[in-house]
Amino acid sequence: MNVLNLLKSFDDLSEYWSPRVIGRVNQSFIKIAKAKGEMVWHDHSEEDEFFLVLKGELRIDLEDRAVILGPMDTFTVPHGVKHRPVAKEETWLVLIELASTKHTGDVASDLTRSVDDQLEWLNA
Amino acid sequence: MNVLNLLKSFDDLSEYWSPRVIGRVNQSFIKIAKAKGEMVWHDHSEEDEFFLVLKGELRIDLEDRAVILGPMDTFTVPHGVKHRPVAKEETWLVLIELASTKHTGDVASDLTRSVDDQLEWLNA
Repeated sequence: MNVLNLLKSFDDLSEYWSPRVIGRVNQSFIKIAKAKGEMVWHDHSEEDEFFLVLKGELRIDLEDRAVILGPMDTFTVPHGVKHRPVAKEETWLVLIELASTKHTGDVASDLTRSVDDQLEWLNA
Repeated sequence: MNVLNLLKSFDDLSEYWSPRVIGRVNQSFIKIAKAKGEMVWHDHSEEDEFFLVLKGELRIDLEDRAVILGPMDTFTVPHGVKHRPVAKEETWLVLIELASTKHTGDVASDLTRSVDDQLEWLNA
């Protein structure tokens, strides 16, 4: 139960597309991630995913359109909606997801990270 | 399913301590609020409450201590913990709470706002 600065928490996050859990509220995780390049197309059949961009620009490709998020822009990808996040330059993201959400959805890829790794960090 | 700028969403929020729902992700609401002065002491017996300060400074009094949040600082008040948010100057907050959380907890006061009012705004 400590105060955590959202921007400073990015300091030692070096790997792209590797979300880190920085907080929990009820059944939701608050995660941060640095993004650059293309994520894989994926969806989460039961779980919505909230995006907030702090720095940079994130394009989220959806099946029928794309949305562009600049600094302090927010967007929620509803459950079941296929999406692909893309960042041309390094972009800083805050994500709100259920504790159970895998960031690559049902798609296992080289980018898939284990939630257990993240919890280890949170409890360290 | 639209992009919403978190900072711009404060533009027409004039009343203090009157949280507005600006998004929903799973069972959680993302709310914004302008704070100035003292909130009432309250707790939420079952529900955690996440605070992010965007502008200004928020002190959260707890029973045994107080925490100070500046810009981009985050803090989660665990369920069952009595707290009182206080802001000397106008402070901008983002809150993440369950859809069911009342912002004054079990305490009904002049500051209590109905979630139905907020949903009306979200769906407008």
